[in-house]
Amino acid sequence: MASSLLTTPSQTLAALNPATARARRSSPAASQVSFSSLRLPSRRALRVRAAVAIEKEVPENEAPPTFLREDGAGAGSGSVRERFEGMIRRVQGEICAALEEADGSGKRFVEDVWSRPGGGGGISRVLQDGNVFEKAGVNVSVVYGVMPPDAYRAAKGTAKNGAADGHKAGPVPFFAAGISSVLHPKNPFAPTLHFNYRYFETDAPQDVPGAPRSWWFGGGTDLTPSYLIEEDVKHFHSVQKQACDKFDPSFYPKFKKWCDDYFYIKHRNERRGLGGIFFDDLNDYDQDMLMNFATECAGSVLPAYIPIIERRKDTPFNEEHKAWQQLRRGRYVEFNLVYDRGTTFGLKTGGRIESILVSLPLTARWEYDHKPEEGTEEWKLLDACINPKEWL
Amino acid sequence: MASSLLTTPSQTLAALNPATARARRSSPAASQVSFSSLRLPSRRALRVRAAVAIEKEVPENEAPPTFLREDGAGAGSGSVRERFEGMIRRVQGEICAALEEADGSGKRFVEDVWSRPGGGGGISRVLQDGNVFEKAGVNVSVVYGVMPPDAYRAAKGTAKNGAADGHKAGPVPFFAAGISSVLHPKNPFAPTLHFNYRYFETDAPQDVPGAPRSWWFGGGTDLTPSYLIEEDVKHFHSVQKQACDKFDPSFYPKFKKWCDDYFYIKHRNERRGLGGIFFDDLNDYDQDMLMNFATECAGSVLPAYIPIIERRKDTPFNEEHKAWQQLRRGRYVEFNLVYDRGTTFGLKTGGRIESILVSLPLTARWEYDHKPEEGTEEWKLLDACINPKEWL
Repeated sequence: MASSLLTTPSQTLAALNPATARARRSSPAASQVSFSSLRLPSRRALRVRAAVAIEKEVPENEAPPTFLREDGAGAGSGSVRERFEGMIRRVQGEICAALEEADGSGKRFVEDVWSRPGGGGGISRVLQDGNVFEKAGVNVSVVYGVMPPDAYRAAKGTAKNGAADGHKAGPVPFFAAGISSVLHPKNPFAPTLHFNYRYFETDAPQDVPGAPRSWWFGGGTDLTPSYLIEEDVKHFHSVQKQACDKFDPSFYPKFKKWCDDYFYIKHRNERRGLGGIFFDDLNDYDQDMLMNFATECAGSVLPAYIPIIERRKDTPFNEEHKAWQQLRRGRYVEFNLVYDRGTTFGLKTGGRIESILVSLPLTARWEYDHKPEEGTEEWKLLDACINPKEWL
Repeated sequence: MASSLLTTPSQTLAALNPATARARRSSPAASQVSFSSLRLPSRRALRVRAAVAIEKEVPENEAPPTFLREDGAGAGSGSVRERFEGMIRRVQGEICAALEEADGSGKRFVEDVWSRPGGGGGISRVLQDGNVFEKAGVNVSVVYGVMPPDAYRAAKGTAKNGAADGHKAGPVPFFAAGISSVLHPKNPFAPTLHFNYRYFETDAPQDVPGAPRSWWFGGGTDLTPSYLIEEDVKHFHSVQKQACDKFDPSFYPKFKKWCDDYFYIKHRNERRGLGGIFFDDLNDYDQDMLMNFATECAGSVLPAYIPIIERRKDTPFNEEHKAWQQLRRGRYVEFNLVYDRGTTFGLKTGGRIESILVSLPLTARWEYDHKPEEGTEEWKLLDACINPKEWL
């Protein structure tokens, strides 16, 4: 998830099965890969195996007004697809502008625009080696793909070898759009931030009469400091809670725990950082309400993060502080390459590698058997990663 | 494989299934995990799913004369198990002594000895931040585990729900021993080296009359330079070929290609480095012959590598050379965390994390969309990683 735009690994699928060809507009440079996990709505995680492919992305000179196809369900003016794409592109612009200002180096985000022949595309923006930020990436993407019929059937509980009415089910087209960002500052006292908000829709499969369209939202914002400064963590979590509380008082406690559970480095028995909020497969509320909630969360990134950056970007530090930050960056790499669903799935299915791996820090470090001494500032951070706390 | 001692992911299994409890001597701190790939001999890759666990390792003050259990099949004096453990422990000593001398800093390898209550153990030796070596790890281990019955049945082609004679098959105990090492020098013109040699045995399952004991060898030695210096690569490959040719003229070409195929970073479409030799599941030759072959290969590490280190350890370099080395180290991390079977399996099953991840470099770097200019020295190395060459 860190850098890939979609946790839901349906990200960029286009089934190679000949039966699915009609759902694709073209198939240049499709490479065959396999995938083993596909999440579907209603919190039902499925395991499916299928031959899938991804179209190779094509560089574009400039961003089009929209990456949406004109055809298809849910594509009309005022649709959630259209509103979500508009929101993430607006937020990308606002956040990049604010980060450039906070960086103060005069450096600008470098932009790469790309599209896929079958529809969709993305805008990757990266600022590297600035004054404040070692590496900052803010990406948006819109993806059209095809979900293998087995996955859809399993999700809907229809018969294994046919659809509900006895006909053989075909592939299920899907749409996904998201914004994803990882911000790695230089100063060891300034925390790394990750956020990601995405919207997912399946079309109603034409050959399964009565099967519904599905949609869901996912995302979250989380903080990864190298040093535990309570004032900063409390500020960050309180902004997340404020955003959640505007919609449902159960959201913050639920999504805070989900975040602690998700960003877990199992082989270390520690979390990547100090959490925030995380949710996935969210569809059991009014769709407009969740659209507004995702918008509120994305809009809360700057007020949650910029005050912390302003306070910590010039904090004096020494080589030991920097080395500890680099070790924590190593943990960030471990989480993203070993566990993060969006990253690992993106690597396996042939997503745009540079967009996926922009989440990795510019530099990282691994020391053999490093253990901070109990009671030190380094130990306090590690302890909070091992034993997640309530910050509010 | 990079740092884990065994590619064969049976490394450290002890099935949690109650039926397997009798095969284990104790089960403290066993943690439940799942695994999805278990390789068995005769080049039959199997996919199995089972609940497995690993015993937590216990630190020891000093290395015992042997990690072998006294009981069980194949444990006698002069057995291949005994000879293999003797060989890898002797080689560990010789290689560490030679590396300390080459390093010239007066620094010594730090040793961690550990054992598991159910039998087996290991010795991890690490030299960090020396004159020549940024990080050098040389590990040996001996593992007793239990292979889930499904895996054994699938390998042997017996019926799914019972053994050949109609009785339900029980778990299959196995033994594995190996040496594994990754050496990361500081100088960008001095290449990283990895080698790993291992021996694997299953016991004859007591409840499957007539089922044979199995054994196989695996391993390899490969070179990962940041700059392509043909003299060095040719020397390295020629020593590998000499070792192979003493046993079978088909070995070098076959194992050279296997190495190029194995150390492949699929999402980059490039190899980790410039290859060497790699083999696995090797059991279709005389067992003594293969024992001697593994010994010859392990004995060829120093003559293949030390002359290169001596030539390159003091080569002048600038910041650009160092940054490129750090980017290639990033690729090393990507391979090991995403693809390497031993590493990914070890992380999932709860192997000794610090021994597994000692393969990661002290420092690494990820730049967004870095592409060396065609014709540069950096480009030449990358080209050779994308298009494997014949060096001899």
